[in-house]
Amino acid sequence: MSVMIESKQVYKGKIISVRVDTIQINGKPAIREVVEHNGSAAILPLMGDTIIMEKQYRHPIGRELLEIPAGTLKKGEKPEECAARELIEETGYRAGSLKPLGRCYMTPGYCTELIHFFVATNLSKVERHEMDEDEEITIVRVSVEDAVKMILNGGIEDAKTVCAILAYAQKLKE
Amino acid sequence: MSVMIESKQVYKGKIISVRVDTIQINGKPAIREVVEHNGSAAILPLMGDTIIMEKQYRHPIGRELLEIPAGTLKKGEKPEECAARELIEETGYRAGSLKPLGRCYMTPGYCTELIHFFVATNLSKVERHEMDEDEEITIVRVSVEDAVKMILNGGIEDAKTVCAILAYAQKLKE
Repeated sequence: MSVMIESKQVYKGKIISVRVDTIQINGKPAIREVVEHNGSAAILPLMGDTIIMEKQYRHPIGRELLEIPAGTLKKGEKPEECAARELIEETGYRAGSLKPLGRCYMTPGYCTELIHFFVATNLSKVERHEMDEDEEITIVRVSVEDAVKMILNGGIEDAKTVCAILAYAQKLKE
Repeated sequence: MSVMIESKQVYKGKIISVRVDTIQINGKPAIREVVEHNGSAAILPLMGDTIIMEKQYRHPIGRELLEIPAGTLKKGEKPEECAARELIEETGYRAGSLKPLGRCYMTPGYCTELIHFFVATNLSKVERHEMDEDEEITIVRVSVEDAVKMILNGGIEDAKTVCAILAYAQKLKE
């Protein structure tokens, strides 16, 4: 446990805000930088044993990554609602079934973000594909088996994607 | 690809800094909040089929998590050096062997952090345990099999820990 001595917001933004907390830990004061994030939903969309994935240019790292669909929770939005919405927005598929696949804190040392994972099945194509104007996404279909191989050989390097695919592959075996 | 129009630092801290970039994407301007992080190393320390894990109170989320050892790269430090150092600092064990287990961008939508994973074996106890004064860590030993079960039932919720343990378990099967 830590005791909060002081908390100061240093940045308030759109997706994130940042505060600097002074806490007491082991009886001594310490500083903790905290990135506040509203949480997200990530979706493993399956058609048979094929995953609907996306290649997306990621500005912070200056390159494209192969990922599963995901997005930030809107204020008051439930993780399931966010998952259903983001799947349609990013891939043009509606999920007939959305089942929870656990959740993870992405970087709990300095950020509050919790990602809720879902497996989406019974996918149907939605007429209009309402992609965010400022996203660049290319849809890619990858078998679960190939995706696992790509994780082990470095072809998939996005943490949420690794968590979701390996957890699903592990469940398949049990 | 995106074209940078403007970049403005809004916070400069110890572990993270934050900048707000205006970029051009799909021919239109867009804002990207970027948390800059120097990258980290995370270690899966094995004694036989037992993982040396740690329970650590995480201030940003207000609770304790069960994790593998990890830490931030110092300026100019190589991932292997960071892994060896953090393993000693956090667990009191020196790795006789450190082998790469891939790498992941943790939250590439808004943060630059890349974690480099290593499997540490041939562990030997170090005389003096030089833990950071402002960390609260309890060492816990968990078998690989139990850790995989805990990931699937929600007992392990830290993303880097999920990535490392499931990737290692997957490799064992191949």
